[in-house]
Amino acid sequence: MAQNIYDKPEFFESYSRLDRSVRGLDGAGEWPAMRALLPDLRGKRVVDLGCGFGWFCRWAREQGAVRILGLDVSENMIAQARAETNDAAIEYGITDLDQLDLPEASFDFAYSSLALHYVERFEALVTTVHRALVAGARFVFSIEHPIYMAPTRPGWSVDADGRRTWPIDRYLIEGPRTTNWLTEGVIKQHRTMGTTLNTLIVAGFTIRHVQEWAPTTEQIAGHPEWAEELDRPTFLLVAAER
Amino acid sequence: MAQNIYDKPEFFESYSRLDRSVRGLDGAGEWPAMRALLPDLRGKRVVDLGCGFGWFCRWAREQGAVRILGLDVSENMIAQARAETNDAAIEYGITDLDQLDLPEASFDFAYSSLALHYVERFEALVTTVHRALVAGARFVFSIEHPIYMAPTRPGWSVDADGRRTWPIDRYLIEGPRTTNWLTEGVIKQHRTMGTTLNTLIVAGFTIRHVQEWAPTTEQIAGHPEWAEELDRPTFLLVAAER
Repeated sequence: MAQNIYDKPEFFESYSRLDRSVRGLDGAGEWPAMRALLPDLRGKRVVDLGCGFGWFCRWAREQGAVRILGLDVSENMIAQARAETNDAAIEYGITDLDQLDLPEASFDFAYSSLALHYVERFEALVTTVHRALVAGARFVFSIEHPIYMAPTRPGWSVDADGRRTWPIDRYLIEGPRTTNWLTEGVIKQHRTMGTTLNTLIVAGFTIRHVQEWAPTTEQIAGHPEWAEELDRPTFLLVAAER
Repeated sequence: MAQNIYDKPEFFESYSRLDRSVRGLDGAGEWPAMRALLPDLRGKRVVDLGCGFGWFCRWAREQGAVRILGLDVSENMIAQARAETNDAAIEYGITDLDQLDLPEASFDFAYSSLALHYVERFEALVTTVHRALVAGARFVFSIEHPIYMAPTRPGWSVDADGRRTWPIDRYLIEGPRTTNWLTEGVIKQHRTMGTTLNTLIVAGFTIRHVQEWAPTTEQIAGHPEWAEELDRPTFLLVAAER
């Protein structure tokens, strides 16, 4: 199974203080770009893979989705997500995404924000999602960008004449990467861009949009520290259609 | 128009000595991977964008293609390509790919090897290729990988504890990159992976395969210096379908 780092107390505590945990969708820089990839959710049955505190599930309900299933491996997060709503259209479940099982043709839209790079069995997950969607349904997800994930020791470097760079190695060697983010020993699964896209294609999806997220000029004005994103992307956004 | 570096004498002389110029397709490490993406060429009308010395055109003819149009900006290369064949099914033309014009629905397959990263007007070229292909036809091309192209000063670096890295910057800032390869001042057009794929999708292509080329174990045994490809990819191969 995928590592459940989110329920490790020091991780959960730090994660809970992130802007995207406190402020929700609007606290995530890539949210406007993700939102632009979403279909009209009115009347839709939605599954959110790695729903965390349930911000997207509640938002999808506000947009008119009629049934929302939010799944996450973190018991802490699901407990908080459940406490945040009493809407019977929103259901939460504790699920290891590496063991995901969904009923056939039961959803009109699948969503996942920054969760699938923890999944070891990506091919199995994509096959399950494809089977769970109706024809024409969208699957929109974000993951950490493989350029961000690949290095043995991810981090910035400054060369002799002051150029800020992100030194890459092992890009084409897929598999686990252990990093320290909020806590030590966070294990992510590095896959190349090609593998991510080809896995979707082989499962039967059509690629509709591939976005290596860049902050807008306005976003950089508000968060000057985000300018470094232009040197190397952190997030990869994909829209696929069944 | 795109820069025509190939007819600069010192570039042409060096390029002519490369393995892929002397030995043709088998001298290119990525050729087996490209070949695996090709459709059956028997009876097909083929266009090769950036055909160079015409190695692929002649090979396509051997595979049973019935008409092959090879286009390249280099007069030197087209002259040599013409000298290498007297097959009336193979035609060569000198063309700036930034000004490409092809008749509608006149080809069953479009091919390009390591040429499109010189093109400034990629969107216009893709639209032209889409229009020139019949429904169901494939467009297979290779370009320099954006990870390879992005940096201000592309090259390897070795960090304090001996790790070989490829320092990236400006990945999300698209546009010209001036590098020194065989000669000084070679201008390439950096585009992100997302832009390359989305341009194809918007033009009406379906993405069939995306391959960030890695040498096989056998290839590395024969060319140990190719192992560095595993740290950062040089070539991006794409198969799209009209």
